[in-house]
Amino acid sequence: MSKDYAKITENALTNYLPSADCREKKLIDAMAYSLEAGGKRVRPYLVFSFNSLCGGSEESATAFACAVEMIHTYSLIHDDLPCMDNDDLRRGKPSNHKVFGENIALLAGDALLTLAFETLTNEKTVKICGTPACCRGVSVLSKYAGATGMIGGQVIDLMSENTNAPIEVLREMDYKKTACLIKAACELGCISAGANDKQIKAASEFGECIGIAFQIQDDILDVTSSDEELGKPVGSDAENSKSTYVSLLGIEKCRELVDELTKKAVNALQGFDGDTTELGDFAYKLAKRNK
Amino acid sequence: MSKDYAKITENALTNYLPSADCREKKLIDAMAYSLEAGGKRVRPYLVFSFNSLCGGSEESATAFACAVEMIHTYSLIHDDLPCMDNDDLRRGKPSNHKVFGENIALLAGDALLTLAFETLTNEKTVKICGTPACCRGVSVLSKYAGATGMIGGQVIDLMSENTNAPIEVLREMDYKKTACLIKAACELGCISAGANDKQIKAASEFGECIGIAFQIQDDILDVTSSDEELGKPVGSDAENSKSTYVSLLGIEKCRELVDELTKKAVNALQGFDGDTTELGDFAYKLAKRNK
Repeated sequence: MSKDYAKITENALTNYLPSADCREKKLIDAMAYSLEAGGKRVRPYLVFSFNSLCGGSEESATAFACAVEMIHTYSLIHDDLPCMDNDDLRRGKPSNHKVFGENIALLAGDALLTLAFETLTNEKTVKICGTPACCRGVSVLSKYAGATGMIGGQVIDLMSENTNAPIEVLREMDYKKTACLIKAACELGCISAGANDKQIKAASEFGECIGIAFQIQDDILDVTSSDEELGKPVGSDAENSKSTYVSLLGIEKCRELVDELTKKAVNALQGFDGDTTELGDFAYKLAKRNK
Repeated sequence: MSKDYAKITENALTNYLPSADCREKKLIDAMAYSLEAGGKRVRPYLVFSFNSLCGGSEESATAFACAVEMIHTYSLIHDDLPCMDNDDLRRGKPSNHKVFGENIALLAGDALLTLAFETLTNEKTVKICGTPACCRGVSVLSKYAGATGMIGGQVIDLMSENTNAPIEVLREMDYKKTACLIKAACELGCISAGANDKQIKAASEFGECIGIAFQIQDDILDVTSSDEELGKPVGSDAENSKSTYVSLLGIEKCRELVDELTKKAVNALQGFDGDTTELGDFAYKLAKRNK
């Protein structure tokens, strides 16, 4: 990685947060707590990389990268709530509601979701990227994050508990729950740089493939990793009687699938003229991650 | 009211929902349940009215009106959750989580919040209103609905429970919790019609005044109305030991304040050249409502 996109993202995220010098300080603190809790910053990396590949400036990618990370972060906060997965730990730290209470965690999630769209359309972003890119950014992000994208995937996940869901349900669930937002990140990188439709389509294909591979790898790690490595309780899928790729196909077949999807993703990068080595390496690294 | 804006809004809201012919049907049903639960459709009315006052077409106001109503609806769903107000009834019907479960209600709220921004930037809206109006619409709506607007107000509300909050806290809370979204509706009506800054500012002033009056009237109705009239349990503020305008100033002073704010709102309408009789009447009607 030639640039530390994670660091750039983290600095920018802090700047997009409203000042905590207000009566609703606890809300801003809760938003900051989860935004700053680390994580791999996979989605911002993809925004910056595709932006750069399409000849964009780092400045033009920043708001788009942060917006996707805000959506990702809100989804984790809501996902950890007692009425959802009821997870006490996230990335090795107490989850948001364990620190701030359920009501503030709920509202911090809502506020991050809202802030993503404010960030994509604030005066500075519009000045740098222009209204067509900002508008398309909101459209793409809201579509992939919404009822027929990420949230739809979470619902399919909930509905398929204890049902021995077949592989086609798993496939749709993983596509929506995880791949959609990663796909959005790749497309948003291109859009922030004013890319053409051919480039956006290639980025979309790349994102979809590594996104599904990423979720399958998550399922693998849920059964092979330790709590410490993973930063969250392992075996939580089995404990919640959730059907996963691993429970349906076994670990070996899952590893094959991850390899296959990663190759397909790297292949999609041929749609770009620039140097795609780093993005290709990134896809392979994701497929081999152990946390 | 020359046009049945509530009816137009309700038809359009249904059309903006994704098809329920999918695995996440329960989510779409939950979104539809609360969207279709009625209510006064105050915010859409304001969008349509200011759009019309600024010479816009009904077509250009529809997406903006529906987006505000989606935000309002999601906030009610989340507000009723057990970790928030824990209300079993909303508009005389079981609240969303009583019908669909807490997890689906949480996600239906998230999905409506997201759908608001998708609606403001979809292909059709962009074609009708243009990218600058859509972009500014997202910016205004996200700002007023976010951490320093509506959500901030909800947090101040939570934090001020059992604290005998003084009047300046109440004022900020009511401004943010209720007036911000009503103000957004008025501004969005102008923006959807391509209005100038002077018009947007006048609409903003009108919205702020009737918004605060609306919340004070809500506090009054919480102590003077019956469950049946109100469609929700009365006295819930007192039960939750919440400081309100009524508990601090008494009912008579509150009624005076509502009158004063309403007159100020009507006065702001002088910033428009067109016929503002209906909007003025609407402000007086809101101030006199009994549910």
